[in-house]
Amino acid sequence: MNIVELIRLKRDGGNLNASQMADLIAGYTAGSIPDYQMSAFVMAAFLNGLSAEEAGALTEAMLHSGEVLDLSDIPGKKVDKHSTGGVGDKVSIILAPIVAACGVSVPMISGRGLGHTGGTLDKLESIPGFNTALSIAEYRNQLGEIGIVMMGQTEEIAPADRKLYALRDVTATVESIPFIAASIMSKKLAEGIDALVLDVKCGSGAFMKTAEDAHQLAERLVSIGEASNTPTVAWLTDMSSPLGHAIGNWPEIVESIDCLQGAAIQDLMEVTYALAAEMIVLGGRAESVDSAHNLAMEAVETGKAFEKFRQMVAAQGGDVSVIDSPEDRLDLSHQEDVSYAGRETVYVNSIDAYALGLAAITLGAGRINKEDEVDPLAGIVLNKKIGDIVHPGDKLATVMASDEERVDQVKNTAGNAFSFVSNAVPGRSRLMNRYSDGVWTHQPGSISV
Amino acid sequence: MNIVELIRLKRDGGNLNASQMADLIAGYTAGSIPDYQMSAFVMAAFLNGLSAEEAGALTEAMLHSGEVLDLSDIPGKKVDKHSTGGVGDKVSIILAPIVAACGVSVPMISGRGLGHTGGTLDKLESIPGFNTALSIAEYRNQLGEIGIVMMGQTEEIAPADRKLYALRDVTATVESIPFIAASIMSKKLAEGIDALVLDVKCGSGAFMKTAEDAHQLAERLVSIGEASNTPTVAWLTDMSSPLGHAIGNWPEIVESIDCLQGAAIQDLMEVTYALAAEMIVLGGRAESVDSAHNLAMEAVETGKAFEKFRQMVAAQGGDVSVIDSPEDRLDLSHQEDVSYAGRETVYVNSIDAYALGLAAITLGAGRINKEDEVDPLAGIVLNKKIGDIVHPGDKLATVMASDEERVDQVKNTAGNAFSFVSNAVPGRSRLMNRYSDGVWTHQPGSISV
Repeated sequence: MNIVELIRLKRDGGNLNASQMADLIAGYTAGSIPDYQMSAFVMAAFLNGLSAEEAGALTEAMLHSGEVLDLSDIPGKKVDKHSTGGVGDKVSIILAPIVAACGVSVPMISGRGLGHTGGTLDKLESIPGFNTALSIAEYRNQLGEIGIVMMGQTEEIAPADRKLYALRDVTATVESIPFIAASIMSKKLAEGIDALVLDVKCGSGAFMKTAEDAHQLAERLVSIGEASNTPTVAWLTDMSSPLGHAIGNWPEIVESIDCLQGAAIQDLMEVTYALAAEMIVLGGRAESVDSAHNLAMEAVETGKAFEKFRQMVAAQGGDVSVIDSPEDRLDLSHQEDVSYAGRETVYVNSIDAYALGLAAITLGAGRINKEDEVDPLAGIVLNKKIGDIVHPGDKLATVMASDEERVDQVKNTAGNAFSFVSNAVPGRSRLMNRYSDGVWTHQPGSISV
Repeated sequence: MNIVELIRLKRDGGNLNASQMADLIAGYTAGSIPDYQMSAFVMAAFLNGLSAEEAGALTEAMLHSGEVLDLSDIPGKKVDKHSTGGVGDKVSIILAPIVAACGVSVPMISGRGLGHTGGTLDKLESIPGFNTALSIAEYRNQLGEIGIVMMGQTEEIAPADRKLYALRDVTATVESIPFIAASIMSKKLAEGIDALVLDVKCGSGAFMKTAEDAHQLAERLVSIGEASNTPTVAWLTDMSSPLGHAIGNWPEIVESIDCLQGAAIQDLMEVTYALAAEMIVLGGRAESVDSAHNLAMEAVETGKAFEKFRQMVAAQGGDVSVIDSPEDRLDLSHQEDVSYAGRETVYVNSIDAYALGLAAITLGAGRINKEDEVDPLAGIVLNKKIGDIVHPGDKLATVMASDEERVDQVKNTAGNAFSFVSNAVPGRSRLMNRYSDGVWTHQPGSISV
């Protein structure tokens, strides 16, 4: 392999074959291809694209750069869900216990928040004592025992992806659909799963701002999964406004617990149940999405889902007493309500997810750089959602942080993130489109939960 | 300056301003911007282009990364010529003494051959004892004393260009017109010249294979020169067949000496006189190109040009006795004639410069890698040129090398580089188009010398 020739090939719009892609990634992981050649290749690929075959080969190469787990000795199907990330997206934390309670094992390896979106690990770690740094042996044991485990990336899994992501991060080549797809899928396929459900978020609060990009990403993700004989279903969901009410790590855990105990937070549970139902079908516990949806609701109503969550928290060292009375922990020294200052009764027309995601960073709930510490208790809780009626003086949201200055910085932003109209706004589904087996299905979905 | 933002800007098709470009190059030269970020930037610029302003700012930044010579204490105008390189292009070696003999100082800093084209330094160094590694003080002194100096790049001049070129060489980003233009002009403008004439070669034996690329490069080069208040004229010249008869270092010196002594090698002297005349006008020694052309021819006819060449060879340590009887040195142990094997009388229609340039590398006359040694005596001398009549059995070329195997390897290639037609071929001018002051002039030129 001549690396300069591979760069030239991609530069001139050609495609690498699978063996060239494998050599490229193996050489880069081993260090025989230096960063400066890889970054030139990646920029050429960013601008000229990667074909579906190349993205598949890249995924395979990154997947096999480290350990690929084999969970076949654990009985039953193992199914995971991945979200591309959004503001207020705590779906994993509610969905995984529901699906596990329905008898499908959920081995979930997640990431941390970066930029305006949160990360599942940060949320879980806001539970005092909760350990996300499990070994692969611990991961495997817990999955076998209670059918659910949620942990962070380990050194063993897809080291090429870590090295390549770090390079992309400093060379302005992160926002590339084929590289994003390969990065996601190489890690997910290394988990040892039998099937995968993807939540591709679309809108201001997501990484994919446009429906076109989100559609492309979904197709790439599913085609890579299918090429690896892993049944994969993708949902495009609306992320133009925050999902649910809470934004911030511990606030989102509180909201998740509420939902696991039956709170019918419409937009959040619509997405959660839709994705959970897909997982239950893929996991072989229901014949149809409808019956799977019913199973999932039953798991919540009977308390089995919350019990599964408690088991996981206990297994991973978390303080279960905090889970059992979460409201006790929410009183921050600094919190302020943001109220509606208008004189007319209005309806909420939109809530800018991106603006609130950035506001959450300012409060200390998120990171700009990977090294930044997060404040587990900081965040924003919305009191009004799209379509809600707002009377003069009504509370729109509560802003919380460990220091007063940060709260003051964010208050206006939080208020300005809302836009209003004078007439009632019809309810809108979060579920946009579904993709599997090469077919897009538009499903307006039901907003009743 | 945030380097990631600059990469992103170029990636997304934007343009850096002059201060951003200056920061980029200064940071890269100083090492605060690592190779892996620079290579991502360069690939983005390769694919999305650099504006004329960016190429100018890049040139300025590279120019000022090292010493910029000031030759204003040496009386008279200093004018240089640069060629983008071609097969058999020994124009500099003939032209510089002619122009200096006409009273215009010629401070010429040249490069080595790489790939299918030769380099002036290698050619000069084939003269026993000739030293091209002068210090800047020696360069300045010799220019003041005899009005001509031909040397290699020094460490002091445009270090950013050297570092950037080395990176481009290993990241498949060499063939970019704005980077090529900035690289050429940063070194030339650092020489302390008052004006510059460019020979932009076009065709199979040149780096620019198409007229479109050559036109673009010429425009970039001239606009950069003009932006630096250095009057610059560019000629596009045809490099689809080798220039003159000789290819190879010492063989080209022999041909150059012949021309300096009056040999009327049509295509070679047409280009030489055209460029020399431009330099003489820019150097203030003639009012018009026509009178400058006459002055140049006079310098050859009177022997002043050859005498100037002898002075330079002597000043730079070369063996003048070899110059005075060059033919004595051409008998290589291995040389073979390539003859025309057809049975009909024909005319030469084309001679593939690229094929012969590669053949010269095989013979040892050129380099594939920068570290390769060259054999000063190896090469190919054409006995027939385009338009010449060829009878059965006529000699087409002589192939020379230090070992027999190399001669055998190349013999067929040399013969196959010729194509023939049965009817007489009209003479073609090497001079294609002239560019200065923003205006292209098509000049069919005269093929009489």
